[in-house]
Amino acid sequence: MKAVTFLGPRKIEVMEKPKPIIEKETDVIIRVTKTTICGTDLHILAGHVPTVEEGRILGHEGVGVVEEVGSGVKNFKKGDRVLISCITSCGKCENCKQGLYAHCEDGGWILGHLIDGTQTEYVRIPYADNSLYHIPEGVDEEALVMLSDILPTGFEIGVLNGKVQPGQTVAIVGAGPVGMAALLTAQFYSPAELIMVDLDDNRLEVAKKFGATQVVNSGDGNAVEKIMELTGGKGVDVAIEAVGLPVTFDICQEILKPGGRIANVGVHGQSVDLHIEKLWTLNITLTTGLVSTTSTPMLLKTVQAKKLHPEQLITHRFPFSDIIKAYDVFRNAAKEKAIKVIISND
Amino acid sequence: MKAVTFLGPRKIEVMEKPKPIIEKETDVIIRVTKTTICGTDLHILAGHVPTVEEGRILGHEGVGVVEEVGSGVKNFKKGDRVLISCITSCGKCENCKQGLYAHCEDGGWILGHLIDGTQTEYVRIPYADNSLYHIPEGVDEEALVMLSDILPTGFEIGVLNGKVQPGQTVAIVGAGPVGMAALLTAQFYSPAELIMVDLDDNRLEVAKKFGATQVVNSGDGNAVEKIMELTGGKGVDVAIEAVGLPVTFDICQEILKPGGRIANVGVHGQSVDLHIEKLWTLNITLTTGLVSTTSTPMLLKTVQAKKLHPEQLITHRFPFSDIIKAYDVFRNAAKEKAIKVIISND
Repeated sequence: MKAVTFLGPRKIEVMEKPKPIIEKETDVIIRVTKTTICGTDLHILAGHVPTVEEGRILGHEGVGVVEEVGSGVKNFKKGDRVLISCITSCGKCENCKQGLYAHCEDGGWILGHLIDGTQTEYVRIPYADNSLYHIPEGVDEEALVMLSDILPTGFEIGVLNGKVQPGQTVAIVGAGPVGMAALLTAQFYSPAELIMVDLDDNRLEVAKKFGATQVVNSGDGNAVEKIMELTGGKGVDVAIEAVGLPVTFDICQEILKPGGRIANVGVHGQSVDLHIEKLWTLNITLTTGLVSTTSTPMLLKTVQAKKLHPEQLITHRFPFSDIIKAYDVFRNAAKEKAIKVIISND
Repeated sequence: MKAVTFLGPRKIEVMEKPKPIIEKETDVIIRVTKTTICGTDLHILAGHVPTVEEGRILGHEGVGVVEEVGSGVKNFKKGDRVLISCITSCGKCENCKQGLYAHCEDGGWILGHLIDGTQTEYVRIPYADNSLYHIPEGVDEEALVMLSDILPTGFEIGVLNGKVQPGQTVAIVGAGPVGMAALLTAQFYSPAELIMVDLDDNRLEVAKKFGATQVVNSGDGNAVEKIMELTGGKGVDVAIEAVGLPVTFDICQEILKPGGRIANVGVHGQSVDLHIEKLWTLNITLTTGLVSTTSTPMLLKTVQAKKLHPEQLITHRFPFSDIIKAYDVFRNAAKEKAIKVIISND
């Protein structure tokens, strides 16, 4: 089968790879029908994720059809249409029992990282009963690729950790795919203001269509002043950091009301200067996290009920044979006006 | 009346001051019977709290007897024995209605800060109905001085923000009065391990008597290694920072399990380097805060029920005439083996 293979920093290639086989009784083999590319894949490609070995098949998002099931799998059978979660979890260890699937002692984010991923034709999913979801009837399969990672990430690590409440003022710093996912899912909780912050005017325009009540271009370095002005000098209840840089983290820590929350979603490569000399009195909460995908069943219901339209995030579509071109488009997302790309194996 | 008066950095003096009068109908005048000195008073004295003006009477803790009540006060009458809360709150503003009394729009920590405090004979308490508590019958009045600030601070900002749960492993970094208050109140929730960290062996010995299951002297710079060893390499569920220095904050951020919590109680004078490049994946929560004293009624019941013995924290007693000596003892707390001092006006 053909697979996007990591060959070291700045090197990927579509290579011929052997089809995966059942290794443990809890495994399932999926024929991948649609997948996508994540910002994390670009981090891997840039050499920022040293735990990814050369030869690894990338990708941790996708939908597909069950091809083969291990003898211990209870919930899935050959032919089932399934959503693949980016997180693999045994469901039995101490962390899983607390819903902390991200830190499963025998799983977590391993797909397209420590084991071969979804940017190919067939993928092996360990602990399938806990790591796959049935695709409900009548739901657009392609849209559900957004539920493998970015929607639960924006929702759990941004919106739920931020405890967004009705009537609140929320700022989302970063209008990339995960920031947009937070923007869409924050609206479940009816905040009064959703302020979107980014460097790119096109993305801010899209954010308005997705429900942002205010947008701030942070390019001139005055984002904090603008947000304070928009909030009558009060600041925000919740700041969602969806970039992962000291400068965007700074915006979040400067705009909080007393009692406010920073929900960090961004992937950071360096430490940040936390202004605890100001924040210690402000009764703030800062959360971090890797998604556990415990919200996937809930999100599936919101898609079925048409409260959430994940297909809004899809801007580009490619056949698998053009996946390297898709990487190029996604890498130049601002220029290409790309949010998420869909790769089809059909 | 005689009052401890701030005269600028490193200068306090017991001076003659006019007795306070009712200024608003919601005020009460209290005859202070017992007060104490807080670490915050030492910060003021050192010149670290520039909002304190010269001439200010210090002190935000104490018990006393109601001397005079404003016409709008409903809950208190002349002669009532009362506990004074360090936080003044109107109970009516948006922050108060969320229980965020610390950020009352017309109050917060103002006593001995922006208005005259308790280290004197008489004190005016604004919004008395929300800022004073009746002393229950049969409860040691002196012990309740510990409930003005340090016990609710250790409890709300350390234990409640840290969400200490049965069976958990908790580290408290700093065995000063507030760290000890966290140690005593953490035991309400039956954690499995309570690891106390400090530089002073005497305080660590006291912590053992107060319920610490393990103690770590951090003097050699190996506190993180020792705590990781004590926890079988797993780290802690909750780290309570009760010092306020980059080095103690660092210990807290290095010893967390996935899903762990840092509850910052320490008063910080400078920013800290937050290792978000490691923490971003760990699903941690960091909280900060000034006490709101919303837990005071709960703590009063635990004292009545003898589940909490605040008198354990009192190591020294002075008459008001020796209050400057009391400051000297408290400033040299480690050498003097002092935790909290009681100043009596009798």
